[in-house]
Amino acid sequence: MDVTAALALEAGKPLVIDTVQLEGPRAGEVLVEIKATGLCHTDKFTLSGADPEGLFPAILGHEGAGIVREVGAGVKHLRPGDHVIPLYTPECRECPSCLSRKTNLCTSIRATQGRGLMPDGTTRFSYKGQPVHHYMGCSTFANYTVLPEIALARIRSDAPFDKVCYIGCGVTTGIGAVLFTAKVEANSTVVVFGLGGIGLNVIQGARMVGARQIVGVDLNPARAEIARQFGMTDFVNPADLGENGDVVGHLVELTGGGADYTFECVGNVKLMRQALECAHRGWGVSCVIGVAGAGQEISTRPFQLVTGRRWIGSAFGGARGRTDVPRIVDMYMDGRIDIDSLITEHLTIDQINHGFDLMTQGKSIRSVVEF
Amino acid sequence: MDVTAALALEAGKPLVIDTVQLEGPRAGEVLVEIKATGLCHTDKFTLSGADPEGLFPAILGHEGAGIVREVGAGVKHLRPGDHVIPLYTPECRECPSCLSRKTNLCTSIRATQGRGLMPDGTTRFSYKGQPVHHYMGCSTFANYTVLPEIALARIRSDAPFDKVCYIGCGVTTGIGAVLFTAKVEANSTVVVFGLGGIGLNVIQGARMVGARQIVGVDLNPARAEIARQFGMTDFVNPADLGENGDVVGHLVELTGGGADYTFECVGNVKLMRQALECAHRGWGVSCVIGVAGAGQEISTRPFQLVTGRRWIGSAFGGARGRTDVPRIVDMYMDGRIDIDSLITEHLTIDQINHGFDLMTQGKSIRSVVEF
Repeated sequence: MDVTAALALEAGKPLVIDTVQLEGPRAGEVLVEIKATGLCHTDKFTLSGADPEGLFPAILGHEGAGIVREVGAGVKHLRPGDHVIPLYTPECRECPSCLSRKTNLCTSIRATQGRGLMPDGTTRFSYKGQPVHHYMGCSTFANYTVLPEIALARIRSDAPFDKVCYIGCGVTTGIGAVLFTAKVEANSTVVVFGLGGIGLNVIQGARMVGARQIVGVDLNPARAEIARQFGMTDFVNPADLGENGDVVGHLVELTGGGADYTFECVGNVKLMRQALECAHRGWGVSCVIGVAGAGQEISTRPFQLVTGRRWIGSAFGGARGRTDVPRIVDMYMDGRIDIDSLITEHLTIDQINHGFDLMTQGKSIRSVVEF
Repeated sequence: MDVTAALALEAGKPLVIDTVQLEGPRAGEVLVEIKATGLCHTDKFTLSGADPEGLFPAILGHEGAGIVREVGAGVKHLRPGDHVIPLYTPECRECPSCLSRKTNLCTSIRATQGRGLMPDGTTRFSYKGQPVHHYMGCSTFANYTVLPEIALARIRSDAPFDKVCYIGCGVTTGIGAVLFTAKVEANSTVVVFGLGGIGLNVIQGARMVGARQIVGVDLNPARAEIARQFGMTDFVNPADLGENGDVVGHLVELTGGGADYTFECVGNVKLMRQALECAHRGWGVSCVIGVAGAGQEISTRPFQLVTGRRWIGSAFGGARGRTDVPRIVDMYMDGRIDIDSLITEHLTIDQINHGFDLMTQGKSIRSVVEF
């Protein structure tokens, strides 16, 4: 079938909007009509060419929501008409990771997904007769896409696509890191580095679980207002501390000895170190969420760990996609979390490059393309 | 009173055995007759002058066992005749750390202890009329010493001093890291870097909790035999892998994808990185126990954390001294852990410098001085 997609033909070039060909679902696969998709920094990172694992040509996009239109042979849990969110971290419930009870990082289709292929080693998309890579197992920058059944979370049908698509990545990454990875408890103190789309979701996750102090750290003072709206209690702009300002010392003092939980939501290895070192001696947990540039390393003195700080990380918020994503949709529908305030732009697919420009300029929190 | 002590008069010089003067216990303090003390690498590290926080003159030693001989005003939990183990990590049960339920790092007397002083800011020891520093709040290289009540664990009176003194540091550090810090579960896979006094205790702790695979890593093949006796199932000598051998890759393969828990018991920052990176993707926990040289740093790619590995550390095995040390004495008395095989030398105080020589030469696991 012919579908409309934003094509990434080569690194560093704008996306090309054109008609591509999509094969129907094979065994265990599902055809989904994508109704809305968010634009994420990870898409931009891959498009830029900086991602060493980036493949071209590809159809990017991994933060979508839509409706099942057709199922392949053997599909058991989904049928046409079901509302779904694509999962770049699938949940097969059968692999050693899924059965471990300790991680959300399902490994069942990791090898082919990393090579931009469906589990059978082929692609469903083609353009001018040539195969086009899938991206993060999702490829939501197209109005139709094909995914394995295990990479789709079924959600309630009354949830608006243009909001809950954001649960496919940013919302879950931020809230999940608080709920599922770090397991922040009521009355905790929290420091969040970076008040972008992920950091703001960390903040509202921390508020939801009853944190008593939530400190936001960002160089952009314009982000303070919405962060306060999401639950931030204190704002720290490192620039206000002077060029040689002691950010760690300031945060340790502000939190009364260090924070119980800290989160790095930028992808800057220097901030990852600061986040660890402003965690409380004895029990502070520091969680890396941001994705650092290729080859970059984090470092610290081992004394920081020996005296009780714990350095951890989170991918997709530690959420098991099929199990936890529908619960986060419920949190939104119940009014326990706010997504609407974070979606600052609604675009058509023809405006998608403009959406990435706004992201680069720091003018948007989340842009959503609706089909 | 006159007591016999091994004095550290200056950095890098042998200890001097001589008579020093000891004042009696003040309020909240206890006079203990030390019956036996182990020699630990930390004593050697401080004596060498490499410890930036080392103070001289001092009476070193922090791994002792003895009998209460006198108590100061207000002492509530101990009385003359009680058998005790001195605690370099005290347990006041009143400070924010003790009340957190999350750490054993009691902070109540940290400031004075770090300066080689009793909590009132003075010393009890003097030599030729000049004050002599306490060491790690213990100073067990003397046949009598004075400690705060909160820095003494009362133990059963049938436990032999020359064995259970080792619970004052090495045994608890190793076994506790398994039981209290990492909380290793039955059926886990474990990798232990360094088969010295700490590593062997990690191994027997892992065996006690039912680990199914316990891999020991050491450059010294002579350690393999006793490690197997303590529960090691596989031995890896990095030298056997060749100069550019992939230790991490080998360990990941040997453990079927990475170990559930890894422990660094050497104090080498390169091994700390290897220990993290051979932990299992998704859930592997790597625990730093060894103390690195001043100023050294650990590093890794943050991807290691984002994909689910956790980097933690342990001091005194995460054990609350007054609560957990008596339980570890019970484990020994019940035959659930072996200490006897680890104590390779029994010395008199006059032979203490010989004991450190054996340690330097790698010929002993633990030397114990009996008074």
